[in-house]
Amino acid sequence: MDEPIRVGLIGAGQMGLWHARCLAHDIQQAELAAAADPDEDAARRAAALAPGARWSTSHEAILSDPSIRAVVIASPDGTHARIIEEAAQAGKDVFCEKPLATDLAEADAALAAVASHGVKLQVGFQRRFDPAYQRAREIIAAGELGPVELAVATTRDPLESGRPGAGKNAAIFIQTTIHDLDSLRYLTGLEVVQVYANASYFGEGPAEDEVDTAAVILRFQTGALATITDSWRAAYGYDVQVEVMGPKGKIQVGSDRQTAVRRFDAQGVHHDHVYWYIDRFGQAYRREMEHFIECVARGVTPDVGGADARAAQALAEAAARSLREGRPVDVPLPA
Amino acid sequence: MDEPIRVGLIGAGQMGLWHARCLAHDIQQAELAAAADPDEDAARRAAALAPGARWSTSHEAILSDPSIRAVVIASPDGTHARIIEEAAQAGKDVFCEKPLATDLAEADAALAAVASHGVKLQVGFQRRFDPAYQRAREIIAAGELGPVELAVATTRDPLESGRPGAGKNAAIFIQTTIHDLDSLRYLTGLEVVQVYANASYFGEGPAEDEVDTAAVILRFQTGALATITDSWRAAYGYDVQVEVMGPKGKIQVGSDRQTAVRRFDAQGVHHDHVYWYIDRFGQAYRREMEHFIECVARGVTPDVGGADARAAQALAEAAARSLREGRPVDVPLPA
Amino acid sequence: MDEPIRVGLIGAGQMGLWHARCLAHDIQQAELAAAADPDEDAARRAAALAPGARWSTSHEAILSDPSIRAVVIASPDGTHARIIEEAAQAGKDVFCEKPLATDLAEADAALAAVASHGVKLQVGFQRRFDPAYQRAREIIAAGELGPVELAVATTRDPLESGRPGAGKNAAIFIQTTIHDLDSLRYLTGLEVVQVYANASYFGEGPAEDEVDTAAVILRFQTGALATITDSWRAAYGYDVQVEVMGPKGKIQVGSDRQTAVRRFDAQGVHHDHVYWYIDRFGQAYRREMEHFIECVARGVTPDVGGADARAAQALAEAAARSLREGRPVDVPLPA
Amino acid sequence: MDEPIRVGLIGAGQMGLWHARCLAHDIQQAELAAAADPDEDAARRAAALAPGARWSTSHEAILSDPSIRAVVIASPDGTHARIIEEAAQAGKDVFCEKPLATDLAEADAALAAVASHGVKLQVGFQRRFDPAYQRAREIIAAGELGPVELAVATTRDPLESGRPGAGKNAAIFIQTTIHDLDSLRYLTGLEVVQVYANASYFGEGPAEDEVDTAAVILRFQTGALATITDSWRAAYGYDVQVEVMGPKGKIQVGSDRQTAVRRFDAQGVHHDHVYWYIDRFGQAYRREMEHFIECVARGVTPDVGGADARAAQALAEAAARSLREGRPVDVPLPA
Repeated sequence: MDEPIRVGLIGAGQMGLWHARCLAHDIQQAELAAAADPDEDAARRAAALAPGARWSTSHEAILSDPSIRAVVIASPDGTHARIIEEAAQAGKDVFCEKPLATDLAEADAALAAVASHGVKLQVGFQRRFDPAYQRAREIIAAGELGPVELAVATTRDPLESGRPGAGKNAAIFIQTTIHDLDSLRYLTGLEVVQVYANASYFGEGPAEDEVDTAAVILRFQTGALATITDSWRAAYGYDVQVEVMGPKGKIQVGSDRQTAVRRFDAQGVHHDHVYWYIDRFGQAYRREMEHFIECVARGVTPDVGGADARAAQALAEAAARSLREGRPVDVPLPA
Repeated sequence: MDEPIRVGLIGAGQMGLWHARCLAHDIQQAELAAAADPDEDAARRAAALAPGARWSTSHEAILSDPSIRAVVIASPDGTHARIIEEAAQAGKDVFCEKPLATDLAEADAALAAVASHGVKLQVGFQRRFDPAYQRAREIIAAGELGPVELAVATTRDPLESGRPGAGKNAAIFIQTTIHDLDSLRYLTGLEVVQVYANASYFGEGPAEDEVDTAAVILRFQTGALATITDSWRAAYGYDVQVEVMGPKGKIQVGSDRQTAVRRFDAQGVHHDHVYWYIDRFGQAYRREMEHFIECVARGVTPDVGGADARAAQALAEAAARSLREGRPVDVPLPA
Repeated sequence: MDEPIRVGLIGAGQMGLWHARCLAHDIQQAELAAAADPDEDAARRAAALAPGARWSTSHEAILSDPSIRAVVIASPDGTHARIIEEAAQAGKDVFCEKPLATDLAEADAALAAVASHGVKLQVGFQRRFDPAYQRAREIIAAGELGPVELAVATTRDPLESGRPGAGKNAAIFIQTTIHDLDSLRYLTGLEVVQVYANASYFGEGPAEDEVDTAAVILRFQTGALATITDSWRAAYGYDVQVEVMGPKGKIQVGSDRQTAVRRFDAQGVHHDHVYWYIDRFGQAYRREMEHFIECVARGVTPDVGGADARAAQALAEAAARSLREGRPVDVPLPA
Repeated sequence: MDEPIRVGLIGAGQMGLWHARCLAHDIQQAELAAAADPDEDAARRAAALAPGARWSTSHEAILSDPSIRAVVIASPDGTHARIIEEAAQAGKDVFCEKPLATDLAEADAALAAVASHGVKLQVGFQRRFDPAYQRAREIIAAGELGPVELAVATTRDPLESGRPGAGKNAAIFIQTTIHDLDSLRYLTGLEVVQVYANASYFGEGPAEDEVDTAAVILRFQTGALATITDSWRAAYGYDVQVEVMGPKGKIQVGSDRQTAVRRFDAQGVHHDHVYWYIDRFGQAYRREMEHFIECVARGVTPDVGGADARAAQALAEAAARSLREGRPVDVPLPA
């Protein structure tokens, strides 16, 4: 086995901790070398996953460590672009959770830094590493549905995942809808030319400027249409589905049951529903990290890089603008 | 048993023939008395279903027959409003296939005639008579989902149901989407205040002004949102689904398998899909006709009358206008 | 249309009433001419379904009416064989509910009468007229599973269908298991050479000699094996399933949901279950009666005749004997 | 973290390799210290999974290493009992793949050694660690079905898992049926008092004394009945299902789809089927090993020990005897 890739974790919240576990336990070629988080406990907890891993409350310690070859950024969304730039300047390969940035100008600056420093960048669109999404894309790409005509995507996060204030500035588009936007681009292989969005807020407290429920229509370059409905208020769990139709048929990727138990009684038939995103996509998160580590080790460009991340972000911003302006918004094709 | 209600069929195409069969064979209280269709063969075929039923190539024979108490209108959409008016003037109770009319002014004229002549009117939104839709509405009306927040509806007709030219003037909205519009109003109990629609044409031949694929976003008075995706190009059959979500859960009404057979082989697991609308809604068509006959017999107003038909039609027109003008269209609340 | 076939109903309980309805309303070529039942109310109720139908408390009135061409026997099981004989002597074609008889000697006497008087006989194995069973048989007969190796059948009747004392003398085998025995013969096209049965009683009251729960193993002539599990105590409804496997795959015929509604809430996902046998097999009952009437009208032998009924009965008796003697029982191949 | 438990692997075939991977990568508290297999390549491959692990072609090297605290036995079935004895004598805690032994006398000798040397023993009934089986047992144990009356279990291994000669001496009962026997005891909490088995061979080559397809009826102490159908010839994958019914309802544990993809086309609806046992029970294998390591670390007795393993084996032997003798075989209640 080659020398393991030493990786530093920047941001040790729920998602960062999951990535840390994959790096520490599941991916032979990786070594969790350090974890940084402003919350000292979080940083310590992540570092404790791997023998010898160091912790710090600032990510500078990671960027300045020459033994660390790559970083995983799972810090708050608003910090992603800046840390990508810094990491690129420090010559580290970068895995960054989605979104790339919170606005497109920042995203472009980050991508420019990645390009000029010649580092690798992968963005955390884990659905692309889910076997069901991959199989669906294969079928579509092979022309087995004919040209795509219509798609319906939905993401429902469990009710308790919402937090007051989290939905300001149409954050749902950049946090949640972005997954649907990316996976529709991934599945169909098409680019979006127009976006219309509508949204509402049903959470507690004053709703000014908050959104937790959204509906979007996309028009693709070929005239194909898609709808997206997203909500942060699902009582029954985590519900991610997508359906893509062409003249020869449709493909549906659905939410799994959590277990294979069904119960039949005088009230009918009952089974469970996958509740947490890790239960649905745990394997995909592991596989995306394996892909990143392998790309770093072999010096190749990861599959889900800056261009895809930028395209999804441009669509999320168009959705937010459509909502603000109450009209469909045209989107230029990616360069 | 009381004297049977003598019914005249106006329009003996596929749908008219189905209604004729229900009247002739399934509904004890009804008697198919006559069938009219410009196509003599069609008229004869329908009349042959019941001993003693007469046929004609013009519906005037039916309207002028004093022994006929009610008519079932299943003629081309563009003739509905006019025939309703004539039937009302002739004092016949009316069951009319959806849509009520092809524009709102015509619809209003027809409704005015119905009102002034004091006849009963029922419109053919058969989904309201489907046990699954009825059960879903009960659950929602009982508050078991909490207030509705998000809905997703879809109707996909089998590919072969399309006909060149059929999609002119956004006819999909008035022919197909109108079922989704009505069933969303029925299920949620809410009124729509804004409609946005986008559409495309993927059929053969020149596409000018034709539509066979549509996506719609509805905004309800409460801020609840819904999407509709409709297509006339489903290779796999007839696919009608709706999902309604509130803070306590969601209800899904789906498409059934045709039979209870599943086949497992080296390629996986395979089962059939309901293919034709009669297979999915045959029972509902029968039940809506039973309801109509019972209302006529008992002299009460049918559940699905002019106000509901007009409301759905107003939404279908708003969708067509949104498509033409490329912007969301506000809809006044029904009076 | 030809002269309708005038049919007399003998036995107007639940099942007889269903057949009467099909004859009176659904089957154009049939006319319900008379209904007989020792319970006058039952006889009157059935006769009321068709204008002009007569009623009686004894079936002799039907057998002696020369205008009646065929009879439907839905009287208690113990009377079937005798009434078949009488009907054959009277020259009537016979549809008889399963079982043919309550022992094999009686069955043989009835079949001899049918043969010597040259009347038609059809037995009520309605599963053979269910589209799912028919499709499954087609697939198997076409060799698409390869030679059958293993089958698993189950029938569960709703809890409330049980009656104290009904399970005496292993009646479950002749009343319920006989459907599984027939459908396994029908699906596989194979004959059974050995039967082993075990059974229990879980109902209320003293259990002496009663059975409401049974498990059976069949060995077919080719070495293929099947299990059957039957119960009269299903809380959740009516549950009939069968699975047939060969080296190329398996076919499963399952129980349908009653409606297409699924409900998702914090406790999981819930849907209904078909509850009553008419809901699962209503269409099959209608189709078997159509087949019978058509055979009578055309003078051809029905598909599900005496030989099949006798074979299933021989297996049910073998199961009862296996249970009594506590050992597998060999069964001779049908002549 | 405490000092890791050093574990030696005895038998590095497919199953042993899986256990080795869990020990090496997934279970923090365990350390794969050594791997033994008569096939040097197999031993080397397993040892290569963990830095510092040694390999050998004989398990004596493992048993004589005082730094090794526990062993995992995944050698051929016929060697289990002897190696358990040796390991017990060497003072090692033992995880042994099922079956405990190939006959009951051997099993008893192994259990006696375990008892007299005071080591821990866990047997590899991994279904007991599957969340679906655990949930089903909870529901049953809580009385939510009422007393168990009827159960139906099936295990189908993929066609290619068969090997000529593998089915000699009714090996299917001790290799495959034993899982159903154990899981029925686990789920119902009941003991079996009688077993009847029938079996066939459909594989290639001469069939003398071979079995690859089996059907079994169990009678429990309460009169509850169960059937088991097992086959090594499933074309469509790995299919493990069980259904347990009481007067209040039934529980079904089924086979999952492999992915959440469904495909709809003109031929119907298609989805995949779990194909390999690791795909269905991978998580359960990991969890059983975690349980074992935790029991070793904490010095407590594992949940699935010798008594359960012996009971299942006694039933498998009774099935084999029933097959040989062509009659039901009574089984004494476990001591």
